[in-house]
Amino acid sequence: MKQFISVHDVPSVKEMVEQALAYKANPLQDKQLGANKRIGLLFLNPSMRTRLSTQVAAANLGMESIVFNVGGEGWKLEFEDEAIMSGDTVEHVKDAAPIMGKYFDMLAIRTFPSLQNKADDYSELYINQFIKYAGIPIVSLESATLHPLQSLTDITTMTESLRKNPLPAGRKPKVVLTWAPHVKPLPQCVANSFAQWVNAWDGPNGEGVDFVITHPEDYELDEQFTKGATITHNQDEALKDADFVYVKNWSTYNDYGKIYCNDPDWMLNNEKLALTNNAKVMHCLPVRRNVELSDEILDGPNSLVTEEAGNRVWAAQAVLAALLSK
Amino acid sequence: MKQFISVHDVPSVKEMVEQALAYKANPLQDKQLGANKRIGLLFLNPSMRTRLSTQVAAANLGMESIVFNVGGEGWKLEFEDEAIMSGDTVEHVKDAAPIMGKYFDMLAIRTFPSLQNKADDYSELYINQFIKYAGIPIVSLESATLHPLQSLTDITTMTESLRKNPLPAGRKPKVVLTWAPHVKPLPQCVANSFAQWVNAWDGPNGEGVDFVITHPEDYELDEQFTKGATITHNQDEALKDADFVYVKNWSTYNDYGKIYCNDPDWMLNNEKLALTNNAKVMHCLPVRRNVELSDEILDGPNSLVTEEAGNRVWAAQAVLAALLSK
Amino acid sequence: MKQFISVHDVPSVKEMVEQALAYKANPLQDKQLGANKRIGLLFLNPSMRTRLSTQVAAANLGMESIVFNVGGEGWKLEFEDEAIMSGDTVEHVKDAAPIMGKYFDMLAIRTFPSLQNKADDYSELYINQFIKYAGIPIVSLESATLHPLQSLTDITTMTESLRKNPLPAGRKPKVVLTWAPHVKPLPQCVANSFAQWVNAWDGPNGEGVDFVITHPEDYELDEQFTKGATITHNQDEALKDADFVYVKNWSTYNDYGKIYCNDPDWMLNNEKLALTNNAKVMHCLPVRRNVELSDEILDGPNSLVTEEAGNRVWAAQAVLAALLSK
Repeated sequence: MKQFISVHDVPSVKEMVEQALAYKANPLQDKQLGANKRIGLLFLNPSMRTRLSTQVAAANLGMESIVFNVGGEGWKLEFEDEAIMSGDTVEHVKDAAPIMGKYFDMLAIRTFPSLQNKADDYSELYINQFIKYAGIPIVSLESATLHPLQSLTDITTMTESLRKNPLPAGRKPKVVLTWAPHVKPLPQCVANSFAQWVNAWDGPNGEGVDFVITHPEDYELDEQFTKGATITHNQDEALKDADFVYVKNWSTYNDYGKIYCNDPDWMLNNEKLALTNNAKVMHCLPVRRNVELSDEILDGPNSLVTEEAGNRVWAAQAVLAALLSK
Repeated sequence: MKQFISVHDVPSVKEMVEQALAYKANPLQDKQLGANKRIGLLFLNPSMRTRLSTQVAAANLGMESIVFNVGGEGWKLEFEDEAIMSGDTVEHVKDAAPIMGKYFDMLAIRTFPSLQNKADDYSELYINQFIKYAGIPIVSLESATLHPLQSLTDITTMTESLRKNPLPAGRKPKVVLTWAPHVKPLPQCVANSFAQWVNAWDGPNGEGVDFVITHPEDYELDEQFTKGATITHNQDEALKDADFVYVKNWSTYNDYGKIYCNDPDWMLNNEKLALTNNAKVMHCLPVRRNVELSDEILDGPNSLVTEEAGNRVWAAQAVLAALLSK
Repeated sequence: MKQFISVHDVPSVKEMVEQALAYKANPLQDKQLGANKRIGLLFLNPSMRTRLSTQVAAANLGMESIVFNVGGEGWKLEFEDEAIMSGDTVEHVKDAAPIMGKYFDMLAIRTFPSLQNKADDYSELYINQFIKYAGIPIVSLESATLHPLQSLTDITTMTESLRKNPLPAGRKPKVVLTWAPHVKPLPQCVANSFAQWVNAWDGPNGEGVDFVITHPEDYELDEQFTKGATITHNQDEALKDADFVYVKNWSTYNDYGKIYCNDPDWMLNNEKLALTNNAKVMHCLPVRRNVELSDEILDGPNSLVTEEAGNRVWAAQAVLAALLSK
């Protein structure tokens, strides 16, 4: 594996998941793998879980991590080629990235979308410029359109859950991604990425997945990620017999970055959960309680959110190990 | 020891002080104790001495520390149960704390009081919510009402000083906590905590302590911490024959969080020091020079403030070691 | 070596350069030298390359580094003696520095000039107060008037380049420091320091250096640093036959901290480069592309800027090693 930007970089989703679960069982089994190696963690946007879990993962591999938070002031990067830099950007990625490539063995980057300009965001200009100029493996800590460490975590969490509570033989797990209300327009990254990975996943036993996406009108996602899923505006219909419900808000894709409908009826609660096959409920966190998801779900026995966030460590560790081993 | 929130968590103040002094004499004696252990240092409020000394203490024990500064933006926590999170808080402590519990072996937290609402502050809602939900040992790096790492340091510093310059046999050390002027309303934490610990301390040789608190009218502290001390509004009377003078500003407790009298005559200077038994002068720092304490005291031979701040490392190391050894 | 503030602290520029190049060839050769030693990195101003390269250098020596960013809020330092601290400064350097001296084995500090008051800036009050009170070796990470880690890097980079592409026997390298346009008034540190170090350098083979400084009228630098160089306002004349062109903006020194001429003709491009002896082009970064330096130069074969920034690690490592070995 040469980089970790999307599911396309992963030779085998199944093997990566197995590696993550192996690290969960034995965190220090590869403590020597990262000796005298160094990862830079570059945050153009804030992070809590992603930063901490990646630092823990690196430490478990015996690898040094150095965090650099790019403030709005002081180190604003330029990404446009041929820019005349007389404005507020103080350094071009063409100059910054190769230096990161000299200081580190690999570079992990978080960079959010503008939600202003769809073409720019979906071209993934920022992370692609780092890939082009850094000369070392790049790990996405969430980019403008995708969040692959989260998605690998999510597949790992579903796999683990299905091992603890197996489905009847021959039954494909039904996985539902449902839109949820929120107070702010959010990126599409987590939803895009979850769709991309579930579509690439052949299920815990190779039998495939029954994958449904549900959202109000106007909240369509990019087909390059969703193709293969059943898409419906009828949430109740989608939830029927679900084994996993993945809850997430996102802003509009077509008329980009907007909030249209914000109907509170889309919030998952126990009444809706009763439609499912006693589904496990997932969310990438942070979650707005009683806006995106009800207390009764989050504090109830079906919630996997804490386990899921904990699994971020093992997913990151599997990714870093694959890059160290290449 | 299961946590470190107040003096009540400590089986023996004396033994903890001895351990701190042992680490001062031999910082690396337990370098293996923290191997493959990890402490999260979570700052909801700024810190210099506390952060650095705790990081150094962890390193001396061979333990990894990861710092996370919670900015006002980006990761504002919700602490109220059943909140409908449609405002500016983005994550509930019920969701955040258990994840810290998965990433770390212990969690140290700094969280200041609002100074707006006494009931909320004195209920210690923030740190108690972390204790309730994190599932790992919690260390206070200063909470709404107490600062136990500082107080353990202070007892350690007095013990050390009395070993260098012993009192006549049978004489109990006289310890005076005196209020000092300041330009801003400050928390009562350091004063509360110092009172709590001195009251729990039986002196360097088990003979007890003569403990006096002095402050202007209206600056009473909470009796749960001060009970056992002599309290007077007459600073000169209090200082008489003192062996240690602990200088600290705090805002009002009863009519909460205010500045009433701010009389500059309460600032300690050499004239007042002449009333004491050549007392050593202490302060937790940072100190406003020539407002809280005069240059002549801070730069003079009786000041212990630098030694005291240096001892923060050994107090923290004793605490972390006790939690690692449990 | 007891500290690293300017070239005057270095017993031999040549030996320090050789040590830097030795570390570049074998980064981990002294991995045990810094065992159980700790460096504090204190930033009163922002930093990217300097912080990261110094952290990497410390790690290569097996030394722990702890970063502390001093925010405008929360920990504003007072540097004036006898200040009555009733304003916005919360801690005096007289109190803060000795504590750093207790927590760390050495202390590295970045502190920028005000560009408001020349006398204050050129007295180097801030870093000198730390030297006076910390009681441990101080390393400048750029101070009000100098940037010695950058300059050691620059001499190292020129030495390395001349080993790869030697000059004809007996020819002294011609080194040109040229002013460049910028959009903001910048410190004189990098230019001052480069001049000081080149003047102290006797060239790669001991034959000396032909050193020329060129800038528009009104941009004279302090003679204490430039004395020994040829100074001219004619950039074309200066560039003639140059082997190295060091490009840097600085604000005015005499009428302090201003922008007078900002003539875009002073920006280096290929036409001007044609005047040189196929000179290598250097810049400390960050660089405003197409304002200070053209894309064609930065992306062309004569640019050393990435190599130069990478060499920051080896220069820092040589400095830290010298302080550890003293």
